[in-house]
Amino acid sequence: MTARVGDHAPLGVFDSGLGGLTVVRALRNAFPNESLIYLGDTARVPYGTRSPETIVRYARACARVLVERGVKALVVACNTVSAIALDLLRAELDLPVLGVVEPGALSAVRALERWVARAGRVPDDSRPLRIGVLGTASTIASGAYPRAVARLSTRYEVVGQAAPLLVPLVEEGWTDGEVPRLVVRRYVEPRIDPGPRGPVPGCTHYPLLESVITEVAADLAGTPVPVVDSAVATAEAVGEALREARIPGAPLTTDARLEIFVTDRPQSFTGVAQRFLGADLGSVEQIDLVSS
Amino acid sequence: MTARVGDHAPLGVFDSGLGGLTVVRALRNAFPNESLIYLGDTARVPYGTRSPETIVRYARACARVLVERGVKALVVACNTVSAIALDLLRAELDLPVLGVVEPGALSAVRALERWVARAGRVPDDSRPLRIGVLGTASTIASGAYPRAVARLSTRYEVVGQAAPLLVPLVEEGWTDGEVPRLVVRRYVEPRIDPGPRGPVPGCTHYPLLESVITEVAADLAGTPVPVVDSAVATAEAVGEALREARIPGAPLTTDARLEIFVTDRPQSFTGVAQRFLGADLGSVEQIDLVSS
Repeated sequence: MTARVGDHAPLGVFDSGLGGLTVVRALRNAFPNESLIYLGDTARVPYGTRSPETIVRYARACARVLVERGVKALVVACNTVSAIALDLLRAELDLPVLGVVEPGALSAVRALERWVARAGRVPDDSRPLRIGVLGTASTIASGAYPRAVARLSTRYEVVGQAAPLLVPLVEEGWTDGEVPRLVVRRYVEPRIDPGPRGPVPGCTHYPLLESVITEVAADLAGTPVPVVDSAVATAEAVGEALREARIPGAPLTTDARLEIFVTDRPQSFTGVAQRFLGADLGSVEQIDLVSS
Repeated sequence: MTARVGDHAPLGVFDSGLGGLTVVRALRNAFPNESLIYLGDTARVPYGTRSPETIVRYARACARVLVERGVKALVVACNTVSAIALDLLRAELDLPVLGVVEPGALSAVRALERWVARAGRVPDDSRPLRIGVLGTASTIASGAYPRAVARLSTRYEVVGQAAPLLVPLVEEGWTDGEVPRLVVRRYVEPRIDPGPRGPVPGCTHYPLLESVITEVAADLAGTPVPVVDSAVATAEAVGEALREARIPGAPLTTDARLEIFVTDRPQSFTGVAQRFLGADLGSVEQIDLVSS
């Protein structure tokens, strides 16, 4: 498959559901002139509990929809697909393909390095610096974050913590107060020691819990702990990838558009979707992936 | 479609996922000699966020699998399918088809009547007695419980409360302690007044939170509040339906079997599934619904 690549071609983003709209939000902040097409496979969400074969099949179907609409780069805003099918999509598609795991891992490593530099510490080489990752059960089980961090350096160790309640908490809109604090504490506490740890929110839904995670982690560590937003990290990686591939950005005069497609129930997710996007949705169109 | 109906034919139960195993547990307690076939559509869980057309399609596919295996009655252990597709399945299938909504509603009404009788109160006819229902967002939005209760009597009013965090809490195994108490309290508090109310756990997952719900509801109401377990209520309704249809029970000598089928990842749900079933699972087999 090849894409129509041009100045005015949009960026394509897909996710199993609507959580990937947090990546769209970060992309719009970073590249206000770029048009975006988002596809949420709401008919088959969540992907995290599916088998690898099924996830590959779904990922190909989502990618095809966006490539056929002429996107100039593809952002896989789904941790599960990023962990399992990214290499395959990169091999099959003739355009930059970015996941959320590698940018999140890179951003965590950089944040930890800045922390160490600021704290004026010389890390003890005999003991790796630890990065905490909160993710869905399947993201943690996939080992994607340890692999991504290990590719960057052997000085870091990833401590993963499955945190399946965080997604429904965010979807319920309970992002501050006692309940999210207790839940986050229960997930973070067993994984944190005094000192610098970077709990990378390893799921597109978690940026909305960032302030609670930051507060709880600092409280448990007894010192501020860098918390990385993988959506912002992904937007930065998209900029780098476009520059590397010499794909021009949209001109300043472009009227940037956001088109949102879902595979089921376009009307029923509006509240949750606007929370993720941080803005009005505009129109949401339903398309059929199953028979495509 | 017709089923092979016989003494030794098993009961068939299906759900979108594994929560329906709480109904299997109640059926095994009530009918220890009956063999059971359970189908969990783990490839497409959850159904609650799908469109009605999609739910009908999925329900037909699940029912077909069980009917082809010769079940003598079909139990729809899924609130979403019970709310949307039960009449259709009953029209299409030549065997008793039971959902979980009607038994839950009937059981709540009976529990409330017993409560009023025990309390020695004469209900004020000008004011309906209120039944609280906790369910997923889609179960509450469907209005299935108010409709089911209205069919029984006009003396009762249903107050529904979407409680989407309860399913992930149960799946996480957090069924006692501070977090579930706070979450349940947040859902129950706005819906309860002093006096008798029966929060019917309107989802197959909630029986595991029954003790927390009972405790919180009694605390808020200032008096014990009847809490209905829809799985147990459904098992009672299955017994009545078999008697009405004059379908004989399994002989005492039968070696009752439990066969479990899922549509994706048979190995990965074992922990959660055993929690729902309250027993070892035995073998779990994967079948393909999508292409059947």
